[in-house]
Amino acid sequence: MRFAGLVEYDGTDFSGWARQPGRRTVEETLSRALSTILRQPVRLTAAGRTDAGVHARGQVVSFDAETGLSPSLIAYKTSAVLPEDVALRRCVRVPEGFDARRDAVSRSYEYRIVNSSTRSPLERRYAVHVPAVLDRGLLAEAASLVRGTHDFRAFTPAKTYHVRFERLISESRWEERGGVLTYRITADAFMYNMVRSLVGTMLEVARGRRSLRDFGRLLEGAERSEAGPTAPARGLTLVGVEYDEDPWERSDDG
Amino acid sequence: MRFAGLVEYDGTDFSGWARQPGRRTVEETLSRALSTILRQPVRLTAAGRTDAGVHARGQVVSFDAETGLSPSLIAYKTSAVLPEDVALRRCVRVPEGFDARRDAVSRSYEYRIVNSSTRSPLERRYAVHVPAVLDRGLLAEAASLVRGTHDFRAFTPAKTYHVRFERLISESRWEERGGVLTYRITADAFMYNMVRSLVGTMLEVARGRRSLRDFGRLLEGAERSEAGPTAPARGLTLVGVEYDEDPWERSDDG
Repeated sequence: MRFAGLVEYDGTDFSGWARQPGRRTVEETLSRALSTILRQPVRLTAAGRTDAGVHARGQVVSFDAETGLSPSLIAYKTSAVLPEDVALRRCVRVPEGFDARRDAVSRSYEYRIVNSSTRSPLERRYAVHVPAVLDRGLLAEAASLVRGTHDFRAFTPAKTYHVRFERLISESRWEERGGVLTYRITADAFMYNMVRSLVGTMLEVARGRRSLRDFGRLLEGAERSEAGPTAPARGLTLVGVEYDEDPWERSDDG
Repeated sequence: MRFAGLVEYDGTDFSGWARQPGRRTVEETLSRALSTILRQPVRLTAAGRTDAGVHARGQVVSFDAETGLSPSLIAYKTSAVLPEDVALRRCVRVPEGFDARRDAVSRSYEYRIVNSSTRSPLERRYAVHVPAVLDRGLLAEAASLVRGTHDFRAFTPAKTYHVRFERLISESRWEERGGVLTYRITADAFMYNMVRSLVGTMLEVARGRRSLRDFGRLLEGAERSEAGPTAPARGLTLVGVEYDEDPWERSDDG
C-alpha cells in the first residue's frame, strides 16, 4: 500500500531534509517515527529536499507500508511520537504509482523579511531582519522579471550536480502584511540555494546597489559570482507542493 | 522629557510583564536596558500588565528621561542591547501628561488555536493545539454575546484585587486563516485571566459541553467556579493599545 504524507517542520534545529550520517535530519527523524508506528522499515520519498535551517509547512512525502491502520491514524500516532519541531499533519492512501517527488508539478516557497530599523522578537525564528531601506517598487519589478522560463545558473553554487539550469517560474511576487515582507515563488523545480540567492540579489536591487537591468541579465545565465549573496536559511519555508491530481482529495477518513 | 515606546516580546521565557523579585520579567529586562542606554534610572508605566507566558506585539510604555538621543535612536540602541525575545520596536516624544496606562482607551488581544487532529510545529510557540471538533457557528455566536457591557466576575480568579467587574467590549470575534483560529477581543480594560477564561469557556460551548444560554448567563455576573477553564497563556498576545491621540503619529524622526 502506498501513502502520501503532509509534513510540517521548524527547520531551526535540523540539518535539512536529507539523511546525513551523524546529523539530525527531518528524513531520519520522520522515517524512524513511521517505522516505530508501522513496525516495519519505512523509506521516504520527499518532494523537496530542503537545506539546513529551512522550514516546511507543506512538504510532501510518499512511502510504502503494509498496515491495518487508517491513514489518519498513521498521522495521529506518528505525530504523537515525533519531537515538537516536526509533525505528520496529514496522511492519505494513494495509487501505487504515486511518487511525491517525480509527480510534483511545482513547488512553492516563501521567504519572509522584517524590514524595520528594529528586530521583531515574535518573527525571529521564521524571518530575517533587514534594517536597510528597501524600495518596494524595485522589489516588485525584480520579482516580475523572474516570472517565465530563465537560466538560473547564476543562482546556484558553481560546483553543482545540476545539469539543466532552466526553470519555469509561474509565480514570483512580494507581498507586505503586518510588518512582514514576504516573497512567494512557485516553479516546476528549484536548484540548491536558488530562492535564497534570488532573494539576496533582489535585496541588492531594492537597496539601489544593483540595477534592474543587471538583475534581468543574470536571469539569462551567468556565473554564480556575478549574483548577490545567499539570504539566510531562517527566512525560507517550503509552503506547498502541487500535483496534477491533489492527493489530499483522496482522503476518505479525515 | 516624556517618551512612549512600542514593545514586542515572546512571553515564553518571561514571568510576565510586572517586576517580581528573583524572576525574569519584561519590565525588569526593558527598564534595565533603557537605563543602560540613557545612563539614568528609568521607571516604566505599561498599558497592559501581561501574565507569565503571554506575548505582546503592541505593548505600550511611557517613561521619563533627560537625553540628547533622538527617540528613534533610543529604540535602535535599546533593542541592540536587549535579549532576542524582546525589542523596543518604536519610540516617540509625547507631551508631559501622557500616561501609557491611564490614557489607554482600549486594549486588543488575540488568542490563537490550531484546531486540527495533529499539532503544528510552526505555530507551537504562539498558539495552542485543540484537536477536538469545534463548531464554528457556536464560536461566532458566543463571541457576539461577549460584545457590549457585561459583568465579567465569573472570568477572573475569585480572590481578586479588582473592585469593579463591568467591562465594555467593543470587538469580539473569531477568524480562521491558514489553519489557525484566532479570537480577537478589544475592551476598555481587562481583568486578570479574563481573555483566557473567556476562551476556555467558549471552547466548551463549541464542543457542545455548555449551552450558549448558559454562557450568556455567565456574562451577567456569576461565580468563577461556574465558568470554564483558563486557556493556556501561550496562545495569548497583546496586539495593540488604542489612545484618543495616537502617540505614533507624533514621530518626527522615523
